[in-house]
Amino acid sequence: MDSKTFNVLRTHHVEYRVTDLDRAQAFYVDAVGFTVTERGADGLYLRGLEDRTHHNLILRQASEPGVAHVGFRVSSENDLDVLGQYFGTLGVDVHWETGVERALGRVLRAQDPFGFPIEFFYQVDQVPWLLQRFDLYRGAEVMRLDHVNYISPHVEEAAHWYQDHLGFQMSEYTVSVENGKDRIWGAWLHRKQTSHDLAISNGKGPRFHHASFIASSKDQILAVADRLAALGYVDNIERGPGRHGTTNAFFLYLRDPDGNRIELFTGDYLLADPDWEPIRWDLEDPQRQTFWGAPAPKRWFDESMVTFDWNENPMPTTNPILPDRPIMVD
Amino acid sequence: MDSKTFNVLRTHHVEYRVTDLDRAQAFYVDAVGFTVTERGADGLYLRGLEDRTHHNLILRQASEPGVAHVGFRVSSENDLDVLGQYFGTLGVDVHWETGVERALGRVLRAQDPFGFPIEFFYQVDQVPWLLQRFDLYRGAEVMRLDHVNYISPHVEEAAHWYQDHLGFQMSEYTVSVENGKDRIWGAWLHRKQTSHDLAISNGKGPRFHHASFIASSKDQILAVADRLAALGYVDNIERGPGRHGTTNAFFLYLRDPDGNRIELFTGDYLLADPDWEPIRWDLEDPQRQTFWGAPAPKRWFDESMVTFDWNENPMPTTNPILPDRPIMVD
Amino acid sequence: MDSKTFNVLRTHHVEYRVTDLDRAQAFYVDAVGFTVTERGADGLYLRGLEDRTHHNLILRQASEPGVAHVGFRVSSENDLDVLGQYFGTLGVDVHWETGVERALGRVLRAQDPFGFPIEFFYQVDQVPWLLQRFDLYRGAEVMRLDHVNYISPHVEEAAHWYQDHLGFQMSEYTVSVENGKDRIWGAWLHRKQTSHDLAISNGKGPRFHHASFIASSKDQILAVADRLAALGYVDNIERGPGRHGTTNAFFLYLRDPDGNRIELFTGDYLLADPDWEPIRWDLEDPQRQTFWGAPAPKRWFDESMVTFDWNENPMPTTNPILPDRPIMVD
Amino acid sequence: MDSKTFNVLRTHHVEYRVTDLDRAQAFYVDAVGFTVTERGADGLYLRGLEDRTHHNLILRQASEPGVAHVGFRVSSENDLDVLGQYFGTLGVDVHWETGVERALGRVLRAQDPFGFPIEFFYQVDQVPWLLQRFDLYRGAEVMRLDHVNYISPHVEEAAHWYQDHLGFQMSEYTVSVENGKDRIWGAWLHRKQTSHDLAISNGKGPRFHHASFIASSKDQILAVADRLAALGYVDNIERGPGRHGTTNAFFLYLRDPDGNRIELFTGDYLLADPDWEPIRWDLEDPQRQTFWGAPAPKRWFDESMVTFDWNENPMPTTNPILPDRPIMVD
Repeated sequence: MDSKTFNVLRTHHVEYRVTDLDRAQAFYVDAVGFTVTERGADGLYLRGLEDRTHHNLILRQASEPGVAHVGFRVSSENDLDVLGQYFGTLGVDVHWETGVERALGRVLRAQDPFGFPIEFFYQVDQVPWLLQRFDLYRGAEVMRLDHVNYISPHVEEAAHWYQDHLGFQMSEYTVSVENGKDRIWGAWLHRKQTSHDLAISNGKGPRFHHASFIASSKDQILAVADRLAALGYVDNIERGPGRHGTTNAFFLYLRDPDGNRIELFTGDYLLADPDWEPIRWDLEDPQRQTFWGAPAPKRWFDESMVTFDWNENPMPTTNPILPDRPIMVD
Repeated sequence: MDSKTFNVLRTHHVEYRVTDLDRAQAFYVDAVGFTVTERGADGLYLRGLEDRTHHNLILRQASEPGVAHVGFRVSSENDLDVLGQYFGTLGVDVHWETGVERALGRVLRAQDPFGFPIEFFYQVDQVPWLLQRFDLYRGAEVMRLDHVNYISPHVEEAAHWYQDHLGFQMSEYTVSVENGKDRIWGAWLHRKQTSHDLAISNGKGPRFHHASFIASSKDQILAVADRLAALGYVDNIERGPGRHGTTNAFFLYLRDPDGNRIELFTGDYLLADPDWEPIRWDLEDPQRQTFWGAPAPKRWFDESMVTFDWNENPMPTTNPILPDRPIMVD
Repeated sequence: MDSKTFNVLRTHHVEYRVTDLDRAQAFYVDAVGFTVTERGADGLYLRGLEDRTHHNLILRQASEPGVAHVGFRVSSENDLDVLGQYFGTLGVDVHWETGVERALGRVLRAQDPFGFPIEFFYQVDQVPWLLQRFDLYRGAEVMRLDHVNYISPHVEEAAHWYQDHLGFQMSEYTVSVENGKDRIWGAWLHRKQTSHDLAISNGKGPRFHHASFIASSKDQILAVADRLAALGYVDNIERGPGRHGTTNAFFLYLRDPDGNRIELFTGDYLLADPDWEPIRWDLEDPQRQTFWGAPAPKRWFDESMVTFDWNENPMPTTNPILPDRPIMVD
Repeated sequence: MDSKTFNVLRTHHVEYRVTDLDRAQAFYVDAVGFTVTERGADGLYLRGLEDRTHHNLILRQASEPGVAHVGFRVSSENDLDVLGQYFGTLGVDVHWETGVERALGRVLRAQDPFGFPIEFFYQVDQVPWLLQRFDLYRGAEVMRLDHVNYISPHVEEAAHWYQDHLGFQMSEYTVSVENGKDRIWGAWLHRKQTSHDLAISNGKGPRFHHASFIASSKDQILAVADRLAALGYVDNIERGPGRHGTTNAFFLYLRDPDGNRIELFTGDYLLADPDWEPIRWDLEDPQRQTFWGAPAPKRWFDESMVTFDWNENPMPTTNPILPDRPIMVD
């Protein structure tokens, strides 16, 4: 398979399930700083200040929280057809939709072999660019989606699959050393020229750890922590602000009122050269997780988002073989 | 006169004259980030996020713009009486008011010998502290009044008067060297423990150059420039962002829709020791004005605010003997 | 006693005991960003970029770590004599020194009734101001000493003593509510016009929790965390960056290579009015400690610095009656 | 020509001519914050903290200042051969070099039809990544090269040439409206996924306006202005800090001790989608140049760097037909 015959541009959006749209809007829009593109009975379509396409986050009204799907944009309508055929040769079931998701054209939907509901499309409505509408900047000043983070008991296989079949490249990875041999415990994969579009971490899955959105600066990540605390969202601040060793991310992790998790993120690097040598981290290196050394809180490691299939059933999960978190002593 | 028998705490507020209250509110509150304490037919009473007293800026409805008065807070009601008597011995006319200015108790009003309308009071209404109401932070995140800047043809005398009679101390000064002798061209005077409560610059006066308010950080000074530009206030951005040599201020100068001037300011230092040796700057040192070297725009030097007496008449002005601005070549 | 007959200006410096001067210099100067004024066989005299006096931190060569004394500056030589006599009337033992501590004139030394070694002086050598020597800014860009934090089983009594006898004012306090009655668990006291010069917390003591130094900005507090981590000091980063509810401090706590603790601090407020109503916090309010909710690590609460008397003997300690830390669940 | 048969990755480096290497190193490395990879008799090879290849700026010892060449990296050795042949079909003279420029493999050198000396290569030595060596961060914390800015009397043609033949895409452009018709006055072109690799502005040329390097943040751009001023480089600060309307760049322009110009830049956006509609700016819109309204200093517009051919002769220049700068009134 030549990955050049289609081109996955980037992770474009994610759909979260929320049980109360008003409550979700108060959190994501008024407090955190997302921009509303559109709201309907079915849900909220949000975007960032830097986005020129319709949405990077859909909050859909549902009976239970969790993640509904991840959307990837490709380079053209023709790419979609090529990709649909290619999935056929791989034995991946696909179905096509049009008009189900607002603002998109034809959509190719599938579940990857590891159980994650993914969709691909080219056509999407353009919306006004708000980059210089500084009067609308608020909270973390959410700019755009950066990546999503899957949890899977099959990290190594999943990372290979996205590289071999969808043309992702590995920027960094974490290993659990077993009998002197590196086993991939976490993988950072990208299509656009940043450190990641997709991260995959070891754990009981398929589950979803978080979607990560670019905040305008470290200052705004600090500012949104202050803002959330002032608004009574102190329990929604789960971890950070801090810096990851991996990808150099300056981060803040939040739980929305339904328990869904997002990361606010800045401090990434550009990755434009094809001969990038992936950076290796040892699972037991405490600076991998937090460059400044503080351990992550237990719930950040132990809790994850339920992943639903396209029929809105929660995916059954499997336990991992590798340790599901590093050994830590507070 | 022992200045310890009364204690001027600090420059507490300033009153500006504006011709359109709604327009002024849109600028100062919605764009720049002041907090409204109260609005009446007579005007707007604004404060900063750090303030615990009722107002640091009054915008009073008037037929012409300009400055109406500067308010200084003293330590006690008794201080007011002592000060009133002391002004009598100096031949300064005073009058007492109660109930004219919202939120204040007894007010002692005067004009200093150089023509500036000043008032003193102790009692002032306390208001909720918003320092940790980060959800209300906006624009420059105006924290508090820092200082006012007079323009006078008698800088040296005025600086001595505030030091000799009101207990101000000099933190920094600018000299014009004439025949090898320092002539004071600008003076930075303080009562509270920062670099200034009152600056006096050489020029045709009595006029008023600006009132200066503390912004929460350099970042927020950059952010408010972006915000003002996005809101169509680009012509209201007069100078900066930049850093003054004098007082190390990181600054942005704005003109309100009536042409009144404010400075947004951060980066000051603490000055708590009594043996502070004032810092001397030469008028011809370009880094005095802008530490990074860029000259101030002409209108910043040439335009100033009309100062009104207590009867609302503009004060007549006198030309200075010293050069009214440094010689500059772009 | 009229506190106006002498004037304690501010907490001026602290002396820490370190077992290896070179190792301490690498940490405090090269990594954290203190400025060396002078180094002798006896120790290092450090200051901040904003300081105009000789030192704000002495690191003295000693066999064991801990705190040796806290130095307060007064307004004049006469103040020292008045204070010495006043301590006599209080039954506090004093002794006078000259020439023992570099750069100081006459020094009045005592232990307060709670066991803390304190000294007072007026005369101190002036040193070059580095505020605009931006080429020397490094690490946290340490500007000046802000405050020291004692640990005592007698917080309420100690807070009263510093207020009644040395003219401190209370800016904020924490209470443990016992049978519906507020018991002072922590006190923030100041002389200079910021939230504190001296904090006192409940616990086994006399012990010393930390000295706190002003960093130039939140950004530099983040930057020094990165710098320390890059230099291998990851275990020296104890807590933060974060924001305290009390005093609104944006903080980072560090342990030096001997285990002595410092805080890097920014985000304080100005407190220039005499009628400040102290802010009350409840010990059980999680936002008191960390405004963003994350609990402090156990060692931050449980470990403190040994306090030595003027004969270099460790002070015996007493257990507190109030709970020594809030009940927390991770 | 199918641009997919070779792939220009990005603008990789620029070579400046300097007359005094020590003086240049003091400026670029000690003051501004570039990293030295290597220094030889011929010159200095510098890079940024984020770079993994050998150099992004060469400072070559020469008798007169100016720009010597711009280097573009391509995707493979094969791309070089394809590109060499393609230039042949276009009538562009090329020559191959190996071993002339340190750290590069085979180099394809040419002058574009507008006179700019350009080179292409794939192979380049990898060097240690310093992204998390925060102890080495200094000055503007230069991360990587962003773009170069040509001056040409043939902007429209040059922009077409880079798009048609080298696969560049236009992100933004400025027009001079003549008789109701848009004439391209400035063009922002990119290969990597940011707003530009190459900008071309109207003026007497071929000349070179600047190379632009990414600083780590707005704060560090302010910090380097302070640092430069403190080190005596105040005349080297030419323009800013400020924000451009075009590309949203937060900028600072510097002149090196030889008069060569660099921009320090942050605040860019990601541009990963193929259907990007270029943003149009009118030459007479003052916010195009400075979003906050302040005009650029005259020398920023009027002075440019001499461009040398591969034989080290200055290129002859031609005057533009369009106005060479917007009409401005201070």
